[in-house]
Formats: sequence, C-alpha cells, structure tokens
Amino acid sequence: MPSALVLIADGTEEMEFTITYDTLVRGGVSVTSAFVPDITSETAAVSPPAAKCSRGVRILPDTYLDLTHCGPDKYDLLVIPGGAKGAETMSSHPSVQELVRKYIESNKLVGMICAVTIGGTGSLAAKTSKLPKQPLTSHPSVKDQLDKDFEYVEEPVVISKNLVTSRGPGTAFPFALTLVELLCGEERRAEIRAPMVFPANTPF
Amino acid sequence: MPSALVLIADGTEEMEFTITYDTLVRGGVSVTSAFVPDITSETAAVSPPAAKCSRGVRILPDTYLDLTHCGPDKYDLLVIPGGAKGAETMSSHPSVQELVRKYIESNKLVGMICAVTIGGTGSLAAKTSKLPKQPLTSHPSVKDQLDKDFEYVEEPVVISKNLVTSRGPGTAFPFALTLVELLCGEERRAEIRAPMVFPANTPF
Repeated sequence: MPSALVLIADGTEEMEFTITYDTLVRGGVSVTSAFVPDITSETAAVSPPAAKCSRGVRILPDTYLDLTHCGPDKYDLLVIPGGAKGAETMSSHPSVQELVRKYIESNKLVGMICAVTIGGTGSLAAKTSKLPKQPLTSHPSVKDQLDKDFEYVEEPVVISKNLVTSRGPGTAFPFALTLVELLCGEERRAEIRAPMVFPANTPF
Repeated sequence: MPSALVLIADGTEEMEFTITYDTLVRGGVSVTSAFVPDITSETAAVSPPAAKCSRGVRILPDTYLDLTHCGPDKYDLLVIPGGAKGAETMSSHPSVQELVRKYIESNKLVGMICAVTIGGTGSLAAKTSKLPKQPLTSHPSVKDQLDKDFEYVEEPVVISKNLVTSRGPGTAFPFALTLVELLCGEERRAEIRAPMVFPANTPF
C-alpha cells in the first residue's frame, strides 16, 4: 500500500489539508499527518494537541514532525499544504526544507499547494528548499516571488518529474486526484472520482 | 454578522464539513461546529474530545449539540454534512430532527449535503425530520429512499425555499458558495471565489 505524509501547522488551509488527506485515503493510500511547530514561537517546544487551521477548524495531527520518522524511507509522498501562517511555519522550518530535498533526491513524490502573502510555502517551500529551476505553479499572489527561480506555469496542477505543485483550495481536488493517479494509477483515480459527484463538465 | 451552526459526528465526511465551514468563514459568517453523539452507542454520554471523520481526519468541535444553544434563535443557518456513519448518527438523533423542523419553521436556512448507504442523512435528514414534499437532491446512492417523498432533482445544488440540498464532496464548493450567497449576497460570493483559484471553466 502506498503511503503519504501530509504536514499540518497552526494556520494551515484546512480545505487543502482535508481534501488531500481524504482523497488519498479514498485512493487506498495510507496517510499520516505530522504537526510542524512554529520555530519562531516561544512556545514551539510545547506541541499543541491540535492544529488551529486558517479559518478556525481545529485538527488533531496523527504524529509530530521528526526527521527520523518522516523521511523518504518511510513514505512515498510528502505533501505540503498552504494557508498563510501554516505555509510560513513550514517553509521556514529547517527540517521541512531538508525533508523536501531528501524526498526529491530519493525519487519519492513531493506535493505542494497554494502559497501565502508573506514568505510562506505551498510552492514557496520549493524556493526555501533550494530546488533547481523547473516548471511549477503556486497561488497567484506569490507568483512574483517564484517566477525568476522557476519556470512559472499558470495551470491547476504542474508535474515536474517528482515535484507536483498546485494553486489553491479551488485546485485541491485535481491536485489530490493527480497524486492518487501517480501513486495508484489512472484507473483508481477514475474509480474514486465517480462517487464524489462532481458537477457535470467539471474540468478535472 | 450572519451565523451558522455546522454539525459534526464520528464518521462525518471531513471534506464536506471543512469546505462548508471554511468557505462560510471566508464569506464573513460566524461559524460554530457542534458535535452530535451517537445515541445508539453505549458510550454516547461520554462525548469524545474530537470527531473521528470518515477518512480518519480528527476534528475538534467548537461545542456540543444542545437544543437550548443550537436553535434558530441563535443561528441563521443549520448545516448537516454527510459521511456514512456521521450521517446515520445525525439523521437518527431526535434533537437534530427537531432542530431541522425548527429552523425550517422559523424561516432560517437549512443546508444538507450528501447521504449514506444505510439509513443516513445529508438530505435523508429531510425525510427523518418529516419535511413536506418539495424539490431536493442527495448523493445518488440514496436517491431511491427519497424520490417518493420528495421531488428528486439531479442538480449539484437545489434550493427549495429555505432548504438547500447538495450531493457529495464534489458539490461541496458550489453548496458552500450558494450558502454564502444566500446569507451575504451575490457580490460576496464572487469576492471570495476568486482567490480560491478554481480551474478555468469550473461550472460554479
């Protein structure tokens, strides 16, 4: 069974987190969420029992960020969701930057979605992790922080070797379905898409 | 500021819950989630600290179901999400059935989405709450349990006076955006839709 680690922090966009987690589970992926503490906070050492997400939904993580147990030897996919504060916390955490590089180097999948107004992540973690110049996308609001270092593409989902990037809550379903396809095949993607009942002519 | 109560239970579909909650908050609605206990469980009296949703995401509710504090005098909208077990728990709970009737009679909004394989809710709460015959929709899997008592419509979102029904995770965005429009106006709906970055030609 393929496996995925989905990061979560205070301020994570709860729709991007939940749509990805749930859709991967529907696809037959074993999913674990890991809480990323805010290293700039004085209370960072005291992990909270729940992540307070960007619009107030409080989600309990399955585990806590730990380089030993969160590496590419343990999971096939690393997912970094967006949401202003959560994105900033993740993209500035040295362990997250190291994990992104390790997953990419090990030819495991990395999925990043969305962005943030100041300094954040989603696809910005590609920049803080110093990945080489390649095609990617992000939330439109941080395009100008990425388009010099990367080949910026305005598509809902961009696949560049083992890096999969996406734009926002509105692209979270095609992002998650693409990850299911890459891990479990095209047929599985179609199987789980049908009972979700997307409106006719939905373009993904 | 308009207000909404979104129910949650063990087994609730976490995407339907989260998309509705988050989108309403983006629209400027004050949102509260309330945990509905499973009355058939022997441990129902002991409320768990978190709802374990249908695909394993654990969400902390803001409060617990209580007729005194959850009525149409307190909120402008009552939302009942789907998810097999959560839907069954909600549609069979007498207080939820009473709340649905009270909100409808008070001309407050009621939103129901999805359904369940056996006995469940989403729109099935319309049946267990004995609402009069009117247009509605649901997850296709429970159509045959509803199409005698209601005018069944196969549309992503169906508005019948103050009852708003929808079909599944794939229709959760148009469902939530419709609720924002009804509570806060068409302009607000358009304002919050843009930064979500839906793919071009998304039909909602």
